[in-house]
Amino acid sequence: MSDTELPEVEPDTELDEDDRLRPEFVRAVQEAVAEGDVDEARALVEPLHPADIADLFELIPHEDRASLAKAVSDLLDADVFAEMNDYVREDLIDALEPHQVADLAAELDTDDAVAIIEDLDEDDQRAVLRALDPDDRAAIEEALSYPEESAGRLMQRDLVAVPEHWTVGDVLGYLRGQEDLTTDFWEVFVVDPGHHPVGTCALSWILRTPHWVPVADVMQREQTLIEVDMDQEEVALRFQKYALISAAVVDGEGRLVGMITVDDVVHIIQQEAGEDVLRLSGAGEGDINEPVRLTVRTRLFWLVVNLGTAMLAASVVGLFQGEIAKFALLAVLMPIVSGMGGNAGTQTLAVVVRALATNQLTSSNTVRMVTRELTISICNGVSLAVLIGLGTFLIFGNRDLSIVIGMAMIINNLIAGLGGVLVPVTLDRMNVDPAVSSAVFVTTMTDVGGFLSFLGLATLWGLGG
Amino acid sequence: MSDTELPEVEPDTELDEDDRLRPEFVRAVQEAVAEGDVDEARALVEPLHPADIADLFELIPHEDRASLAKAVSDLLDADVFAEMNDYVREDLIDALEPHQVADLAAELDTDDAVAIIEDLDEDDQRAVLRALDPDDRAAIEEALSYPEESAGRLMQRDLVAVPEHWTVGDVLGYLRGQEDLTTDFWEVFVVDPGHHPVGTCALSWILRTPHWVPVADVMQREQTLIEVDMDQEEVALRFQKYALISAAVVDGEGRLVGMITVDDVVHIIQQEAGEDVLRLSGAGEGDINEPVRLTVRTRLFWLVVNLGTAMLAASVVGLFQGEIAKFALLAVLMPIVSGMGGNAGTQTLAVVVRALATNQLTSSNTVRMVTRELTISICNGVSLAVLIGLGTFLIFGNRDLSIVIGMAMIINNLIAGLGGVLVPVTLDRMNVDPAVSSAVFVTTMTDVGGFLSFLGLATLWGLGG
Repeated sequence: MSDTELPEVEPDTELDEDDRLRPEFVRAVQEAVAEGDVDEARALVEPLHPADIADLFELIPHEDRASLAKAVSDLLDADVFAEMNDYVREDLIDALEPHQVADLAAELDTDDAVAIIEDLDEDDQRAVLRALDPDDRAAIEEALSYPEESAGRLMQRDLVAVPEHWTVGDVLGYLRGQEDLTTDFWEVFVVDPGHHPVGTCALSWILRTPHWVPVADVMQREQTLIEVDMDQEEVALRFQKYALISAAVVDGEGRLVGMITVDDVVHIIQQEAGEDVLRLSGAGEGDINEPVRLTVRTRLFWLVVNLGTAMLAASVVGLFQGEIAKFALLAVLMPIVSGMGGNAGTQTLAVVVRALATNQLTSSNTVRMVTRELTISICNGVSLAVLIGLGTFLIFGNRDLSIVIGMAMIINNLIAGLGGVLVPVTLDRMNVDPAVSSAVFVTTMTDVGGFLSFLGLATLWGLGG
Repeated sequence: MSDTELPEVEPDTELDEDDRLRPEFVRAVQEAVAEGDVDEARALVEPLHPADIADLFELIPHEDRASLAKAVSDLLDADVFAEMNDYVREDLIDALEPHQVADLAAELDTDDAVAIIEDLDEDDQRAVLRALDPDDRAAIEEALSYPEESAGRLMQRDLVAVPEHWTVGDVLGYLRGQEDLTTDFWEVFVVDPGHHPVGTCALSWILRTPHWVPVADVMQREQTLIEVDMDQEEVALRFQKYALISAAVVDGEGRLVGMITVDDVVHIIQQEAGEDVLRLSGAGEGDINEPVRLTVRTRLFWLVVNLGTAMLAASVVGLFQGEIAKFALLAVLMPIVSGMGGNAGTQTLAVVVRALATNQLTSSNTVRMVTRELTISICNGVSLAVLIGLGTFLIFGNRDLSIVIGMAMIINNLIAGLGGVLVPVTLDRMNVDPAVSSAVFVTTMTDVGGFLSFLGLATLWGLGG
């Protein structure tokens, strides 16, 4: 806490009950910056947790960020940058000199430093790397040599590894003796002479075991090893499945090269799980801090694809123009059939995409899933058919029209259920992310299926004549 | 590993490259069980990690679960149940006697035991609680007294708390001396005489600090306290925001009553983030292990709501039956306008719902978000208008029709952008989960908006005449 008086906002009230920065607080900071009152801005920001300072920069508009950064530059440490949204961080990093970025990077764990440096353009990257001391530079250059979104970028190289012939007492002595060990670690890795991990020891076991016991006797031999080129989504699933706190990262020869801790993975779990809704809807990354230009480009791409499929569906309607001209009620009711199919398809799609993403749906239970979804489609299709059939009869008094719309409703629900499972499962087998493109296929199927079944049946039934 | 020979499936090949159980392996287990070959079933299942045994039960059909459980009953320990899907667990637990459930529960941390017991019906709950020893019973009964999905249910009561006047040496002696301490802990909580938490000490600091140093000097004073009645989603957001490994849970008087560790929260983060896509699509929980009857009920509810709004939209089309009868091309093109509005609205909705769920969108930046989405809507609306206008002109050679559909496209994209932000933000302000019901409102707006703008403009323009 600062000794300066905090006008307007009391300490401990910067956050609302949902742990978000209060709008009055954000406004007070913006006003202080706008008035050039650097002391007040600093006094307001200083008590905040680094994660909240990062949030503050995200909440204020782009154009205010540079002046706030100037006012509170000494509070902008590496922790703040590590917590910040990528786009907002780029905004601020762009304004810094390479040696300032290097100072920040040197303070950070390898993984956080890499996250900052990988976003820079190549010239800036080189300048920052030159300004780093040789050890840090080597570590970061090695991390950058691994593919983006891989375990190699995510891991930190600072870890505690001990030989298997040591006793618990040796480990305790080593930990106490080393000055420049990392401070944040939760497990000690036990390695053989070739530096291959052979087990892990939670710190709590080391603390509770007599000094003379060999670590080989207390360590857990079964452990989840992460290969250095593993995709971060896979890493996140492993952490979750086996409830890991940290895990050893190994290179192609099985040698220990780094460690990933759960706090680095929690962001990924949240992000990957949340991505499905954004991808299914064609919203790309869905990052609200992304420059508008990029957002427009991503979304427009998917809208244009959808425009193509909408025109395809419209061309199906076009086949029945004659019937519609004679019996315009068909045009009134047809969007109900196609729309309801779309809704049912989206339900199935959402469930299947999540089940695939969480490894709950594999080839072992695909047939069961298809049966399940078809059962649900039939139940819901029949219920909706009865409702819409009755409604149509009550409103228009046309028995044949009621039967036709009911039958079309059942057919389109079946199409929705079948497409909702088979499209994402097929894409997944072809190693295409089912969240990205399933929706286009499924809604095309339900649009075309809805128009074709309703207008087609109506024509066969002679409703247009 | 078992000494029994493993035919068909080699050790270490139960899992595929994505860490899922191989279908051949699952089939081999099912066949062994079907043939009554208990030894082979055991031999296959024994080498699996508890999380994989849980997965195995989820992957095989409902009707095979009881016989597999019988064959491998000694492998079904508490860890397996803790990892299992709720519905599959209920399936198995229902087949067990209360004293067997009590034996399982006694093995578990409070939070996992509660997860098993809270799903039982009341009579079974009482029977299990009676079979527990008094300490376990008291702990579980207290946990059950907190609301569902609250920190109180999630926390474990086994933790390490030390008085602030102790030295690091005192802590080390205490940890080594206590026989029945919990084994999985990552931090030590420091408490005052009233048992209020005053700081936390990571085990790595304790290991690296000289024995004579008071813990009060190495502990971190700023810590995130979780109130016992806090919703689990809020707990998960705190863990993520502040990168916590464990956190103290306090009661209404601020006394330390439990601890939550990150491995308990990881599942919630994944689940809450993934829920948005399921809720937005009206798929409820979207659990593929849910009984079909429940799934039908949830999905049918949302489909019927959608049927109502589809009929509302259809009634708008009904107003223009005369024009459609005269100029059936209107019926062909109208689904394009409403459908594209729906797509654009869904994009915006997905982004806004995620931004709200992750606390990135607050009242501080709502106006900015509305402006941003309107800008995007205008850009995309104009682009789509040009495309569809040109397309319509090239195909049908009707200049007026091209202008009308282009104008309608821009209007409906604006409706989509505005609705996509304002509907979820308004629901959120009213403390309604925006993921649950936003989609119905927004698609109704874009359906009605699309039909009304296109058919209305066409009528005003005299296209139907």
